[in-house]
Amino acid sequence: MKILDTINSPQDLKKIKKEDLPFLSQEIRTEIINTISKNGGHLASSLGVVDLTIAIHYVFNSPEDKIIWDVGHQAYAHKIITGRREKFKTIRMHNGLSGFPKIEESCYDSFGVGHASTSISAALGFTVSRDLKNEEHKVVAIIGDGSMTGGLAFEGLQNAGHLKKDMLVILNDNEMFISQKVGAVAGYFAKLLTAGMTRKFEEKVIKTVSRFHGFGASFRKLLKRAKVMLFPGMLFEEMGFTYFGPVQGHNIDSLTVILENIKGMKGPILLHVVTKKGKGYFPAENDPIKFHGVGNFNVQTGTSEKKQVVTYTKVFSDTLVKLAQTDEKITAITAAMPEGTGLDKFAKKFPERYFDVGIAEGHAVTFAAAQAAAGLKPICAIYSTFMQRAIDNIIHDVALQKLPVIFALDRAGLVGEDGGTHHGAFDLSYLNYIPNLVIMSPADENELQHMLKTALSSRKPCAIRYPRGEGLGVKLDKSPHILQIGKGVILKEGEDICFLAIGNHVTTCMQAAELLAAKNIKASVVNMRFLKPLDVKLIKEIFSKIKKFITVEENSLIGGFGEVVKAILCGTGAIVESLGLPDKFIEHGNLKILREKCGLTAENIVQKALEIF
Amino acid sequence: MKILDTINSPQDLKKIKKEDLPFLSQEIRTEIINTISKNGGHLASSLGVVDLTIAIHYVFNSPEDKIIWDVGHQAYAHKIITGRREKFKTIRMHNGLSGFPKIEESCYDSFGVGHASTSISAALGFTVSRDLKNEEHKVVAIIGDGSMTGGLAFEGLQNAGHLKKDMLVILNDNEMFISQKVGAVAGYFAKLLTAGMTRKFEEKVIKTVSRFHGFGASFRKLLKRAKVMLFPGMLFEEMGFTYFGPVQGHNIDSLTVILENIKGMKGPILLHVVTKKGKGYFPAENDPIKFHGVGNFNVQTGTSEKKQVVTYTKVFSDTLVKLAQTDEKITAITAAMPEGTGLDKFAKKFPERYFDVGIAEGHAVTFAAAQAAAGLKPICAIYSTFMQRAIDNIIHDVALQKLPVIFALDRAGLVGEDGGTHHGAFDLSYLNYIPNLVIMSPADENELQHMLKTALSSRKPCAIRYPRGEGLGVKLDKSPHILQIGKGVILKEGEDICFLAIGNHVTTCMQAAELLAAKNIKASVVNMRFLKPLDVKLIKEIFSKIKKFITVEENSLIGGFGEVVKAILCGTGAIVESLGLPDKFIEHGNLKILREKCGLTAENIVQKALEIF
Repeated sequence: MKILDTINSPQDLKKIKKEDLPFLSQEIRTEIINTISKNGGHLASSLGVVDLTIAIHYVFNSPEDKIIWDVGHQAYAHKIITGRREKFKTIRMHNGLSGFPKIEESCYDSFGVGHASTSISAALGFTVSRDLKNEEHKVVAIIGDGSMTGGLAFEGLQNAGHLKKDMLVILNDNEMFISQKVGAVAGYFAKLLTAGMTRKFEEKVIKTVSRFHGFGASFRKLLKRAKVMLFPGMLFEEMGFTYFGPVQGHNIDSLTVILENIKGMKGPILLHVVTKKGKGYFPAENDPIKFHGVGNFNVQTGTSEKKQVVTYTKVFSDTLVKLAQTDEKITAITAAMPEGTGLDKFAKKFPERYFDVGIAEGHAVTFAAAQAAAGLKPICAIYSTFMQRAIDNIIHDVALQKLPVIFALDRAGLVGEDGGTHHGAFDLSYLNYIPNLVIMSPADENELQHMLKTALSSRKPCAIRYPRGEGLGVKLDKSPHILQIGKGVILKEGEDICFLAIGNHVTTCMQAAELLAAKNIKASVVNMRFLKPLDVKLIKEIFSKIKKFITVEENSLIGGFGEVVKAILCGTGAIVESLGLPDKFIEHGNLKILREKCGLTAENIVQKALEIF
Repeated sequence: MKILDTINSPQDLKKIKKEDLPFLSQEIRTEIINTISKNGGHLASSLGVVDLTIAIHYVFNSPEDKIIWDVGHQAYAHKIITGRREKFKTIRMHNGLSGFPKIEESCYDSFGVGHASTSISAALGFTVSRDLKNEEHKVVAIIGDGSMTGGLAFEGLQNAGHLKKDMLVILNDNEMFISQKVGAVAGYFAKLLTAGMTRKFEEKVIKTVSRFHGFGASFRKLLKRAKVMLFPGMLFEEMGFTYFGPVQGHNIDSLTVILENIKGMKGPILLHVVTKKGKGYFPAENDPIKFHGVGNFNVQTGTSEKKQVVTYTKVFSDTLVKLAQTDEKITAITAAMPEGTGLDKFAKKFPERYFDVGIAEGHAVTFAAAQAAAGLKPICAIYSTFMQRAIDNIIHDVALQKLPVIFALDRAGLVGEDGGTHHGAFDLSYLNYIPNLVIMSPADENELQHMLKTALSSRKPCAIRYPRGEGLGVKLDKSPHILQIGKGVILKEGEDICFLAIGNHVTTCMQAAELLAAKNIKASVVNMRFLKPLDVKLIKEIFSKIKKFITVEENSLIGGFGEVVKAILCGTGAIVESLGLPDKFIEHGNLKILREKCGLTAENIVQKALEIF
């Protein structure tokens, strides 16, 4: 019988003998590795904090005490400990457990998450609420060094330092974040670690913390002063936090001692814990970037079956490198996702023109704006969902000044297993009202290369949004060429109904048209290519012949492509139906299932066409 | 003859004898005070940096050297020195000078601005561009202590600290920001200053800096180490910057010495300068909050004619206090704009429930989300334009989790003299696609109080957007009552045409209906109240009788109310015309002029109605 079999809640965990916790830790790791090898997921981060998670739940009393995970992709052990072991095998599956903490899913998930750097702000919110309501519980945020580079974390830290309320921030220092160290703060952590003082300090910290507990204020003050000089947490001390660390994050015994002591302390405390991503699974320790987010893999070897598919990301990546070879003004900027966006290839080729700014989307965009103002041609590659962080920068720094920054929005539309926090469901809506912006979306991976070339030649602010994952497998033209901005293309002519599509559902419309042809209904299919400027002329020309339209997009129907088309054709007598994402947050699950649920299949289009007919 | 008469560019400035610069400074102050007393504007900030501006332009060579102002409301002296003295009397007037730096306006304005905390990111963009292009010029960012609290500034600082490129950040420490010190970073500055060491350190800094210039690296290293211990800039040193300061910001002579020395230094430098807001004009020194942004005033006395008008802000403020008296769960959060949002009254009454988080909109929203998760009823009051900074927080932290945070968006629609960076032109568009959100806009100030009560009772995420400035002067009901969510109201019935309006143009529509009545055309007028959920049922009912519609809103037509109405009525045969803000950034100027230009007057509505007719 496993120890884990006895644990259905954090209360059960507290019954385990301290010396048995490392065995439990091993059991949880095995559980995580086995499940993720089948379901895919964020393996390396979650393995890295198994010990820390056990220590936290051993010492604190969730759900009364609020445990708040930053990003949340590291919360697998937390899920297993908090009564979700049985359901854990369904993680990231449709109708299964979410890959992230979620209020709806469990009372142990105090605050839902998916994007980085929110935990300190959230923890502070719980802290002031506790104090206003005269409650007694503890509040703990666990934030990685990557998330700590986000401006939001800084805003939270400084507000917490100012309010001086009792809360604990655990800095989970992975020794690396999503890809590599960038930014001064990350460098700062590196400095602390490379000094090789972790172990030495750890002993000191345990001692110091133990002492702290009993002594009066003046001694504490003195000690604090000395600590600022001797210990390395000045950055946080300056922000108003009491800093402890760095301590080793895989020694559950010493972690519980430290947490017990810190638990009763007053004011904002920062505990700096050093963990290893992928801990306990050699392939992940060895290649934490690959195992950051991974598909299914062989547990023994750590290998995954590599599908030989061409992704949109790859086409973007290859095209950018190709174009940058002959244009020295091209630079590339990302916010801690070089592999995900495909900029890693550019980084290797043109290191001096490549900038990974850390998890700092707002800065990425304003930084790009100034580069454009100075005459460069910056490409800012950020996932659609994360670009939600930088909308004001797009409006205020780029579009208002008509600066030719190119936004490459990967993961637009549904993303699948990562779910509601990660779907790129809104970008057409959050971009379309911004003046001066060109917005395009390729029908397939081949068109993506042409759009990148088009954007670069336009000298206008441009956004290109394209979906996650593999392309359609179409043949790639040898070299990218320039498309006419604001012009759509009629792919198929038919006089009964017209499908207007933008992006990845142009092809779905072509399939639907085929299916309808079998029923003797002749459909036109138009690849609009550009949401802005929209080819209103083309739409009106078609209207002179066809009166029935279906628009298709993988974006929220509100503020998206379909709504604009309806607005244009309002009053003309045209019948327009729109398919797209409904006005709700879409759950997680396999892309195929989600698209079916959202009515974005060829069959759905056919059905809608028959309804109109 | 004034010295100022000889200055048409920074080149002219350099011809002035150093000892005459303080006189020039006085002349510029007089010019600013006289003009702003007529035009209104950001007086206190601009007066605070006159000496610093002169010193910067004396030492650096703009436009080759890039001078980048944060927020930009302090750039009046910069405008006067850089060839815009004649036009300065038109500042903030329609077709006159902008109140902020603007690329289009002058080659000396390297980067346009209006929102806070962008300058370091922008400066870094210019810096890397310079180095990639092998150019030689300097890059200087000037950022206030208030702006330094924004997460974007932190992101910029840390990326700059990491890249280690030669750039200068001047921290203009006002001893206060827009309202008062909040946040750990602000507290940190306060600590430095209250130590009373400014003068003493200043001498040291001048000496140190002078020496630095000639010595080798090892000595510099040693000195740096000592400096970290002795000098107070550890926060910045830890971020990778070389820190100098604090120095007094009104001694032009010593400022020029320091800047000359720093100019040639390598790596990112932070110079901490202490200035006084309103410097040189007693009423503004005495009450910098009043003179932060001020209308016209009497130069002798500093008094303004107080209009006895009831603003939307005041109604919001009074209602909130009233409701909070009987509901202890209500909290209020703002991002450094307590006076502007009217939360100052709440702050005085309920200090323990009031949170000014500094210029940190993202944190404000996530902080509020957690408060709501903990059972409180947070009201987050932020101007429409600044809320653009926190859209992801609204999506990811509030709406996705259905947390009942109330957003009070003051300054929605056109704001007048502050212009393109400040108009609340987009909020209906950037909110409408967010699932689970209730979006409303009052027709007048009386309805605002009811909407606040309605939002509080709904226990849903709600946004209320209302315009800047005075209300319509309608009678206020004695106490706020709850409106039915998602229901519009027919204010006037007429069978020829129907005006559908949301927000402040409901009244404009009523006026238009009166004008049309004189022409024997009978118009219905509907106050929609809610954009989301929209009263589709009501619209369809009306359509069963009336086939012609005009929608009116003070928001971008793209993604706004009108587009949604058109989409709903598409295919019905209804004729719908929409009035609202065009798809461009609206310039600055008097509200009346701007509304005329945007076609948002009763006459415009009448004209449009006649066209349809």
